[in-house]
Amino acid sequence: MIHLNQEKLDKLNNIFKINLINSCSGYKPANLIGTVSKENIENIAIFSSVVHIGSNPPLLAFIVRPSGEVPRNTYKNIKETKYYTINHIFENIVDDAHHTSARYDENISEFDATNLEREIKENIKPPFVKDSPVQMHMEYVNEYNIHENNTTIVIGKIIDLFVNEDIIQKDGYLNICKANVAAITGLDGYSIPTLLDRKGYQRPKASILIKKK
Amino acid sequence: MIHLNQEKLDKLNNIFKINLINSCSGYKPANLIGTVSKENIENIAIFSSVVHIGSNPPLLAFIVRPSGEVPRNTYKNIKETKYYTINHIFENIVDDAHHTSARYDENISEFDATNLEREIKENIKPPFVKDSPVQMHMEYVNEYNIHENNTTIVIGKIIDLFVNEDIIQKDGYLNICKANVAAITGLDGYSIPTLLDRKGYQRPKASILIKKK
Repeated sequence: MIHLNQEKLDKLNNIFKINLINSCSGYKPANLIGTVSKENIENIAIFSSVVHIGSNPPLLAFIVRPSGEVPRNTYKNIKETKYYTINHIFENIVDDAHHTSARYDENISEFDATNLEREIKENIKPPFVKDSPVQMHMEYVNEYNIHENNTTIVIGKIIDLFVNEDIIQKDGYLNICKANVAAITGLDGYSIPTLLDRKGYQRPKASILIKKK
Repeated sequence: MIHLNQEKLDKLNNIFKINLINSCSGYKPANLIGTVSKENIENIAIFSSVVHIGSNPPLLAFIVRPSGEVPRNTYKNIKETKYYTINHIFENIVDDAHHTSARYDENISEFDATNLEREIKENIKPPFVKDSPVQMHMEYVNEYNIHENNTTIVIGKIIDLFVNEDIIQKDGYLNICKANVAAITGLDGYSIPTLLDRKGYQRPKASILIKKK
């Protein structure tokens, strides 16, 4: 094993460190967030930081980098309009999805710069990504500033959920592997996982409980 | 596509809803968090909510469910001792790792209830998981309460990083696929992904920039 202590971590070359630390959490979700500006310019941007906050109410969060560091068109649009979409990235659109990480000005729609296709749904303002097997219409709920590095955690509520009917199981579990959904490692690694197994709900082993009594 | 609007989402059976909403963010990391209590009882527990907060300083967060809902031995130990470990789950230990989600009392160590092996490293108090290809010694930094559902976001800093030398690439990227690291879907689905490709850093396409001028 290679051991990097705090001193060695501090001294790493910046690009090396960004690649390394971005790899440290493990697999990350691959999502496209769709928004529209006040000026009606649609934006679609890749995020790998969407995280489940709770099921009841159905809340998801994602992380926004500090202002000044990168363009934050997605965040700006959400603050202005309160609504956005989250769309799962699948195998056929990985290249275009990843390209949305390029820093386009806010007057350029990533739908024009890539082959990603917009899908507009009835009574919903922000754009979805066509053929994405899991599409969510989100309402902005709140945000929390992480003082330690000035990132923002944006909390949203799922108010409309669209799911490919082939992947939903009887108990509500979504087999996203079946729809070739992508996972991200580090800043730019992509996998299309296959499902190994579902392991079920776990209860303490009786043998252990008896031994301890 | 199946469409669940807010009304339909609200009326879902609870188990169905938990499975469904836990599947909605996409792939999740599979991590074991190791802690030790004031009474020296070691705890190891599975988490799928570890998320990258920033590289400089190297910060990771994870989500703790509301108190009362589930035992929070991991959180209690971190608050008491300030240190913990995060270990990547790999193929050979998936069953035992998942079993740590069973609700054992705080006086029972999951190391005794499973075949997971502890690894103690010099000058580090909390236990690591033996043979895990990415092991991190974390220092508690801060926490944020998500008022909307009373969950807690715990922020920690990587102070020691141990990495299997076979998976680290020249630019710092970790090919965790090479070490058979697991990804989680929903509450209990496991995958062992293979790396499709690294897509590299993206710059805006010149053709788009010219067209817009």
